[in-house]
Order: sequence, then C-alpha cells, then structure tokens
Amino acid sequence: MSLPDIHRVQSFFLSLQDSICHAIENIDQKATFQQDNWQREAGGGGRTRMLTQGAIFEQAGVNFSHVYGDALPASATAHRPELSGRRFQAMGVSLVIHPLNPYIPTSHANVRFFIAEKEGEDPVWWFGGGFDLTPYYGFEEDVIHWHKVAKSVCDPFSQDYYARYKKWCDDYFYLKHRNEPRGVGGLFFDDLNTPDFDHCFEFVQHVGQGYLDAYLPIVEKRKSIPWGERERQFQLYRRGRYVEFNLVWDRGTLFGLQSGGRTESILMSMPPLVRFAYDYRPEPNTPEAKLYTDFLIHKEWV
Amino acid sequence: MSLPDIHRVQSFFLSLQDSICHAIENIDQKATFQQDNWQREAGGGGRTRMLTQGAIFEQAGVNFSHVYGDALPASATAHRPELSGRRFQAMGVSLVIHPLNPYIPTSHANVRFFIAEKEGEDPVWWFGGGFDLTPYYGFEEDVIHWHKVAKSVCDPFSQDYYARYKKWCDDYFYLKHRNEPRGVGGLFFDDLNTPDFDHCFEFVQHVGQGYLDAYLPIVEKRKSIPWGERERQFQLYRRGRYVEFNLVWDRGTLFGLQSGGRTESILMSMPPLVRFAYDYRPEPNTPEAKLYTDFLIHKEWV
Repeated sequence: MSLPDIHRVQSFFLSLQDSICHAIENIDQKATFQQDNWQREAGGGGRTRMLTQGAIFEQAGVNFSHVYGDALPASATAHRPELSGRRFQAMGVSLVIHPLNPYIPTSHANVRFFIAEKEGEDPVWWFGGGFDLTPYYGFEEDVIHWHKVAKSVCDPFSQDYYARYKKWCDDYFYLKHRNEPRGVGGLFFDDLNTPDFDHCFEFVQHVGQGYLDAYLPIVEKRKSIPWGERERQFQLYRRGRYVEFNLVWDRGTLFGLQSGGRTESILMSMPPLVRFAYDYRPEPNTPEAKLYTDFLIHKEWV
Repeated sequence: MSLPDIHRVQSFFLSLQDSICHAIENIDQKATFQQDNWQREAGGGGRTRMLTQGAIFEQAGVNFSHVYGDALPASATAHRPELSGRRFQAMGVSLVIHPLNPYIPTSHANVRFFIAEKEGEDPVWWFGGGFDLTPYYGFEEDVIHWHKVAKSVCDPFSQDYYARYKKWCDDYFYLKHRNEPRGVGGLFFDDLNTPDFDHCFEFVQHVGQGYLDAYLPIVEKRKSIPWGERERQFQLYRRGRYVEFNLVWDRGTLFGLQSGGRTESILMSMPPLVRFAYDYRPEPNTPEAKLYTDFLIHKEWV
C-alpha cells in the first residue's frame, strides 16, 4: 500500500498547468496568459492564469489552487460526516477553454486531490477529475476521437474505468431543467483511492496529459473553418447553457461561491460573451438542429 | 376577518400584466409583446409575454402563472412542514425589463399569492412581492424617486412597511459571493397575511400599480441620453451580476428550475446579451466606479 505523497501531486499539478498553458499559447500565437497569484485567508491560495482575446481562443482560464485548513467544514463532507473537523488539503487544476471559432468546441478539464488527516489515524485521501467537450457544431469524427483518447487513457488502468467514468460524466454534466446534456461528455470520476496511491496518481497524470491529446487535434482541424454571424449567434446562445449548468448545477462552482472561495477564479469558467433568447429553437434540419438531434443525446461513441 | 378570494386575485394579476405590457409598448413604440399560453402537466399554466429588440427595451418579459396541485411537495414548504400534502395554488406576475440604453436601469417586479387548503381546516394563504431597481449608471434623483414611490405605496397601509420591506429587499437581492448588492433595492415582502385578506390584497394591488409609477418616469428621463460602446460594455458586464444572482441565489428561480417549472418562462429574466470578464474593476473616479462607491451600498434613500 503506497502512501500519499502530496508534494509529488502538487509538483505534477503545477507542471500540468504549465504545459497546458504553453500548448494553448503555442496554438493561439497571438495572446498570452496573464497570471494572478492569490492567497486565501483561511489557508492556501492559487495561481490563476487567464488568456483573453486570442486569435483562436476568445478566453482560456487555467487555474491551480491549493487550499487547506485546520478543520474541514461539515458542509464540505455531506456524504462523509466522519471527516468533519479534520485537518484537510484540497488541490487541483481546473480549466475551461472558450474558442472564438464556433466550429471549435469548448472544453473543460479538471484534476484534483483531497486529503483529510487526523492525529493517530490513517489519512483519508482521494483523487477526482476528468475532461468533457461541448461542441456548438458537431463533427462525429471529433467526438469519436475525443472518446477514443478518453478510453485509451483509461484502459491501461482498468478495463471498466472508461465505461464507468464516461457514464458518470454523462450523468454529471446534465441540465436537468432542460433534459439536455451539456455536451458530448468524456470522463468524470471522484472518490478514487483504490487500489493504492501510486495507481491512482498514475491514472490522474494520464488524464491530465490526455486532455491535450484529446483537444488539440480538434482545435487544429476546425480552427480554419470560415464562420459568420449565424454561427457566432448560435455559439453565443449555446454558451448560455454553460452558464446555466455552472451556476445552477455544478457542485464545485456552487460550493466555492457559497463558502467564500475566490469568486473571480471560480467564475473564470463563464464564457466571455453570452446570449439568452426566449424559447429559441433551431430550424429543423439545420446544422444547429443537428447539434440537438445527433450530438446532445445519450450515445456510446467508441 | 375577510376570506381570501382567489378569483379577485387572479383577475387583478391578469389585468396588471395587461396594463404593464401596454405601458411598456406605449413607451417603446417599436416592438410589441408576443404571448405564449402554456400548460403545466401537474396542474395549471401561465401566460408568458416577451418583447424583444425594442427601441427602448432590448427585452421585456412579463409573466403570469397560476399553478396548482393536489399535494404540496415537502420541498416547497421547508419552513412550513405542516402544509406538506395540502391542496395548493400559487399565482403571480413576475417581470424583468432590460432596457437598451445603459443609462436606463433594469427593473424587476413581482406580486404573488399562495393558498394551501385542507378539508375541514381554514385555508392557509399569504401574499408576497415587491420591486427593485438595478442601475448601470446611477442618478441619485432617480433612486430617491424610486424609493419615494415605494414608501408612498407602503405608508397608507402601515408606518413600518417601508422600512421593513426596504431592508428585506436589500437583504434578499444581495450577491454574497461578491459582498455586493444587486442594485439599489426597493421593496420585498413575503408571508403577508395580516391583519386580513382585504388589507393584504389592497396593499399588493398598490405595489403592482406602484411599480409603473416608480419606473416609467426614470425611463422617460434617461431614454434620450446618448451612449456609446463604453457604456454598452459596462452594461453587458454588469448584466453578468444579474445572471449570477438569479441562477445562484434567487430562491424562486432555483426552485422553479429544480422542480420542473417551465424553464423558458423562468429564464425570461436572463439578459439578452451578457459579458463576463475576469477580475474587471472600473478605473477609480469614473462613472463606472461611482456605481460601486455611491450606489451599490447600504443607504437610506428617503
């Protein structure tokens, strides 16, 4: 049984943030990330990086945070009341990329580590994370590629990870008030602490690195498709769903906002420009309608 | 003790929706309201009216709804568990007006009536409602006018209504994750059922009618102020706060979305176009900074 090594986790998370930012800047060629180091009064802090008004990326936020405290609030452990009051650390990298070209999907990825300690007892720890894709105009080959990478990340670790984490992702990123998936999914997992730390940490590293393998080829493939006002308006409208999901349903966002997290870092996931329109429905048989009928559905892509 | 007369309430709410829509169209002169009648599977329905792309109003939503059921869900009565399972009716008019000119504030008003009945027992009923103002560029005289009307609506009914409902409004429309009021307030009340039905209903009628007396003069006064890209960008940014409040904190919105309400009618409060910007702060001593320092503060305006 390998013991958790939080320094190795931190070092990986920081270098993951670096490598993702470099890759994004490298594609964008115009804008660069601005960095904010911030501290949290109750303990810890973070390193928020934002790129705005790029040539390819209208906005990209890549956030590292490491917060800790002497006593875990009960509200943070609704399903694990026995951890309440323990010394804890929570650490993660979270990112949301909003491209300018509506033919490039929005993407989100997250890896996180949590540990709660108590004198004289074994530490309780787990990993969580995943990545998911939100297209405006769907391309079946892109979604298949995305899920193939997701599966190839999972398979070396367990034959059932992909199926389980793909379903978990579908279930999690779902707008219940619209009976509509947020996008075409990917991976989502939480509470991962078996069989041991080394296995879990290795897997999380593959998830973090796999995100770029999954996303960058799609960006490259779609970044030069011409687009106009029609595509832009649909993109702005669909971004409203991202706002709705993150503010109404996303547990991480809500917990952060309601528990005194750093608002500006939490809300870096908000799209830079968003349109809301009452009772909008795309014309049947248009590419916009196809998003709903062919992509925002339950489907096994690989 | 006067008995509740739900037919009179319904008739007033419907005519209030009419008169507000007529007044808005009358000022706008370009756009008119489109109406959607909708039914709710579990009982009841509504009449949603939306005006979009007007000359003065970028979007105006005025919604009437009347929903009922055989058994009030426990989740609807967290603070009144004794009502769970009763036959109930909930009825109201709710509106949000998003003007185009950033010098005109956004406004919101709501009046609502609730009744829960049970064989052999007295019905339990109450009114709620209010109106509140959200400026982008503040004018002290407008805010004073708004609150003067609010006070003049209250004073004939009780000398302490204005102070109580003004404070309730300040407390309710507050973005806790930013330590920031949503706007400059107005009135907010709930659970109003004393001294009797006639008194309460009379008051609610004055609140509903008072909204136009409070808002229209401000629209008239500010609608011709020239504005440009700078004001527009600030307005779009500040509209993000409206989105944040409604989706993260507004109990009515959240309850509606999480309990199978009609999503499109609930989200008619969303601004038509919204901008989010990481860690934006206005330059000191600008009109934009003045909104924060002189208006989004705790203050007794009258």
